[in-house]
Amino acid sequence: MGRLLEDYQDISEIKNMSLEELDIFSEEIRKFLINHVSKTGGHLASNLGVVELTISLYNVFDFNVDKLVWDVGHQSYVHKILTGRKDKFDTLRKFGGLSGFPKKCESKFDHFQTGHSSTSISAALGMARARDIKKENYEVVAVIGDGALTGGMALEALNDVGYRKSKMIIILNDNQMSIGKNVGSLSTYLSKIRVEPGYNKLKQDIDAALKKIPNIGKGMANTLEKVKNGIKQMVVPGMLFENMGIKYLGPIDGHNIKQLSKVLSNAKEIDGPVLIHVVTKKGKGYKYAEKNPGKFHGIGPFDYISGEVCAGKCLTYSQAFGEAMMKIASEDSRVVAITAAMRDGTGLHDFAEKFKNRFFDVGIAEQHAVTMAAGMATEGLKPVFAVYSTFLQRAYDQILHDVCIQNLPVVLAIDRAGIVGADGETHQGVFDLSYLSSMPNMTIMAPKSVSELEYALRFAIAQNSPVAIRYPRGGDNPSVNLTPLKEFKMGKWETLYDEGEITLLAVGRMVQQAVLVREKLRKSGIKIGVVNANFVKPLDISLLKHLVYCGKKIVTLEDNVLHGGFGSMVLEYINTLNKETKVINLGFKDEFIPHGGVDILYKNYGLDVDGIIQNIVKLI
Amino acid sequence: MGRLLEDYQDISEIKNMSLEELDIFSEEIRKFLINHVSKTGGHLASNLGVVELTISLYNVFDFNVDKLVWDVGHQSYVHKILTGRKDKFDTLRKFGGLSGFPKKCESKFDHFQTGHSSTSISAALGMARARDIKKENYEVVAVIGDGALTGGMALEALNDVGYRKSKMIIILNDNQMSIGKNVGSLSTYLSKIRVEPGYNKLKQDIDAALKKIPNIGKGMANTLEKVKNGIKQMVVPGMLFENMGIKYLGPIDGHNIKQLSKVLSNAKEIDGPVLIHVVTKKGKGYKYAEKNPGKFHGIGPFDYISGEVCAGKCLTYSQAFGEAMMKIASEDSRVVAITAAMRDGTGLHDFAEKFKNRFFDVGIAEQHAVTMAAGMATEGLKPVFAVYSTFLQRAYDQILHDVCIQNLPVVLAIDRAGIVGADGETHQGVFDLSYLSSMPNMTIMAPKSVSELEYALRFAIAQNSPVAIRYPRGGDNPSVNLTPLKEFKMGKWETLYDEGEITLLAVGRMVQQAVLVREKLRKSGIKIGVVNANFVKPLDISLLKHLVYCGKKIVTLEDNVLHGGFGSMVLEYINTLNKETKVINLGFKDEFIPHGGVDILYKNYGLDVDGIIQNIVKLI
Repeated sequence: MGRLLEDYQDISEIKNMSLEELDIFSEEIRKFLINHVSKTGGHLASNLGVVELTISLYNVFDFNVDKLVWDVGHQSYVHKILTGRKDKFDTLRKFGGLSGFPKKCESKFDHFQTGHSSTSISAALGMARARDIKKENYEVVAVIGDGALTGGMALEALNDVGYRKSKMIIILNDNQMSIGKNVGSLSTYLSKIRVEPGYNKLKQDIDAALKKIPNIGKGMANTLEKVKNGIKQMVVPGMLFENMGIKYLGPIDGHNIKQLSKVLSNAKEIDGPVLIHVVTKKGKGYKYAEKNPGKFHGIGPFDYISGEVCAGKCLTYSQAFGEAMMKIASEDSRVVAITAAMRDGTGLHDFAEKFKNRFFDVGIAEQHAVTMAAGMATEGLKPVFAVYSTFLQRAYDQILHDVCIQNLPVVLAIDRAGIVGADGETHQGVFDLSYLSSMPNMTIMAPKSVSELEYALRFAIAQNSPVAIRYPRGGDNPSVNLTPLKEFKMGKWETLYDEGEITLLAVGRMVQQAVLVREKLRKSGIKIGVVNANFVKPLDISLLKHLVYCGKKIVTLEDNVLHGGFGSMVLEYINTLNKETKVINLGFKDEFIPHGGVDILYKNYGLDVDGIIQNIVKLI
Repeated sequence: MGRLLEDYQDISEIKNMSLEELDIFSEEIRKFLINHVSKTGGHLASNLGVVELTISLYNVFDFNVDKLVWDVGHQSYVHKILTGRKDKFDTLRKFGGLSGFPKKCESKFDHFQTGHSSTSISAALGMARARDIKKENYEVVAVIGDGALTGGMALEALNDVGYRKSKMIIILNDNQMSIGKNVGSLSTYLSKIRVEPGYNKLKQDIDAALKKIPNIGKGMANTLEKVKNGIKQMVVPGMLFENMGIKYLGPIDGHNIKQLSKVLSNAKEIDGPVLIHVVTKKGKGYKYAEKNPGKFHGIGPFDYISGEVCAGKCLTYSQAFGEAMMKIASEDSRVVAITAAMRDGTGLHDFAEKFKNRFFDVGIAEQHAVTMAAGMATEGLKPVFAVYSTFLQRAYDQILHDVCIQNLPVVLAIDRAGIVGADGETHQGVFDLSYLSSMPNMTIMAPKSVSELEYALRFAIAQNSPVAIRYPRGGDNPSVNLTPLKEFKMGKWETLYDEGEITLLAVGRMVQQAVLVREKLRKSGIKIGVVNANFVKPLDISLLKHLVYCGKKIVTLEDNVLHGGFGSMVLEYINTLNKETKVINLGFKDEFIPHGGVDILYKNYGLDVDGIIQNIVKLI
């Protein structure tokens, strides 16, 4: 650790550092970040990009009073270092350790928790309006990336910000990408601004040109005034924002603390909403991350020197999905893939290259993605929207209203379903079974293994109605080896073991858990049945009836909250059979699941092999 | 019915009418609309506003091949008249009759179903992209109001439209209001365009002015070119859209068929996305509706001559909510109200007048509304977001991610919960209990009567955590008179009748139904208990335990889909008690509920008094 960082204690010190010291401090923080994240994994590139910006914010504002909201929040590491948490970076994203996102319980400087994209302007506007109502006096600052700005709610908020003109500062952290390369016309617009010549130089030229216009008749005066206004607006690069009633400042170099501090100070003086366009470089200062910021967006532990990730070798569900999509799309020209800024994360990288015209990255815009898919489906295409479970929440209404009511064949390929681990509360995909299963016309599938995903996907694409397939982050449990089911039939489960008094109905990767539970119990002489409940909806009614009439005890097992999930559906159905049956539902209780290793979380919430066995033993 | 309309059979006839005939035809349609909607109720003002626009669309396009998407779809009556449904207007919005929104089952010209706002651009873009992939050749047209344009997903779609430049036509139907007066800076921007002098005239003036600029040195040439471009952009009023990569045409008079037809024809020739800015007058041609378009947005039957609504006199939940908010806000300066373009519908009209600074209409922007409320709550305000159940679906993620994870005291006042009747599938509020109850930290309340709402609201505002209060459209059942519960305790239900073997646990307005059921059963000598389950979450665990240990049979009754709702929670809890208990859950099955009178729908789905009794009798 560098000297300045080592001695650093409190945010008040930043204002006392000279510009030279701040530059040194930045470099020390940068090294600290690379060093620590290489060991723990985490979001590196975005944090390297905001070192100077974060320091400048603390240089200009007093966040003991002023409020700072980080959009998404994965770029808050520097902020965490500055606010008393540098010694906890060894525990980053570990169970019980430092969260990778702002968390109120960690620090009073984490004023608003984030995780999903595009929320910061709304939250900050709420704070600004509260301040005005309470006649208090503080600054409110939202830092939002150019990718997050394409999210509908950020645009809704911009529309509202410009209307009532509450004083607030929006910092557009423009690194020309969100997680991957940015898309959309807003992005094109921003890059146009970036390559245009400096505002001041152009303005001087134009003033000179205008002076050469001869004095003309009175009738033209009004027009000329308009022309001048037009020119003024034209040379203000952020006219799109100005048109929305928001004062635009920029673009400015996001790695120049002097310039940043000056502009931030100016912005404080403006009475009304201001957007400061800051251009940063994602991965700044670490050559591998600069070259490949996507790889270093959210990354596991890596080698500091070589930049190579120390990753496992097993095939992930995302990779299997990408490969399956390639095969299926080669065979069926109706199949198209949609992503909301998650091309690589969802495994669609190769698909995007090979099927350029059939691949649509709509930006961070899940709502639009789903309804656009609905539009495609009405014209006979077979759209597959690949999306993380937690982000699909944004499109709840579009799934229900645009896809399900019209019963359109849209496939939702839901990655990162179930707990995801290190990203924590905001990213656990433990609600999808609950919110999707109450939607009429929806079919919900879950393959039991990586190799089964392709067959589930083929079945889904063959349907003429909405189908969601959910699968977890990562790959299979290496100690379980299951033969994939190749022929899916609507609502027909796969009985893996039919024995004993108790039958375990497991969903998705929990089937692997169930198999391990069965093996362990067998060693104690207890036999149980195991069913791969590959359809969460519709349930396999005939199998359920059979189990109930055979007098079996039923245990359901899912990687989802209990209420409204798979077990809840099973219980509701069994209740209508009017036959006393013992049912136990295992899943997550009614609370948010924090960050930590997936195995630790399973253990902690009683869903590891031993936890499940404890519950089963009660039935015997 | 006018002569032209009487003889009218098929859309092909429109292209054969002269401009004079089209004008007469328009007037005939207008009279037809006023006459019919005065009898059936429905959306009047918006349809009067698009008579000429709809006719012009059919004059220019061939919707046997071309695709037309109506945003929201409440303005599709003229379209329905033109496409073979004029004789069904007596059945408008009645059970089994004509829907008030586009419905595929009614006509092949209803190419995409709508109901909620801001979906049309996404859907149309999906169609345009499908066309391009399939190398087909047809036009795609989306008609979207200026209010709907503030919805985040419409802005997400615009961002995507301009990026890849698929050929499509977006018609911005700018009537300067959505349901009420429009808000937001987009709206301000549009009105600026409207009042500016005509594009052509100004352009000529400027060209003349530019010619007077003397020949200047070479060094200035580049700058001058930029100035000219700047001026060009300035005089194109739709620069905001042009900046987003979308060709802008307009503003044009939306009641001039000649001009509309010309511009629509021009738009067809443009290769890429075009936005046509059409200025219409909501309520056009019916003086009462022109004067008060909000009142005639969605209206019940009214007197054609006087414009007066033939409405019932009973106090609605919305009115009671508005009155309660006035009282509570007078006592507590922290209370603020938020609406997403539903000031009047949610009963906040007077509040908005009296507490101007504490009232926030954010436009059609439910996502932003919820997260802004979260921001306000962090600063100690008590925000109450008044919203219809079906529209709150848009903010699923914001409720979960921004409010519940942080456990912030945001109150969701959910109006139109349960079935709403005439608006049908897209508007039934029968999912909220399911999607809210699986969110940790959320409290869900439902008052049993209009007069109980105020006390429920007071309790909700007093909490320091998220609370949703749901209540239905309309008012109380006049044949039931219940004393309001004034002192709410967290998770404590109100036992109204404690007798018999069976206890009916009813939620919200279903308590009134339950009381009627009990009365009717008593006449047959059967006694049952009735509980006002005013908290859906948390459940009254101790009362439930008591009932179970007393050996009672339980019937749950809710105005929500069964899966994941109240009954499902009760069943899940009772299942954990390990004591055999007979439970029957009554609510809506897993299907979409069509439009029709609320009473007819209850009867049809077995939730009227007799239907409930039939189910209870099974238990005896």
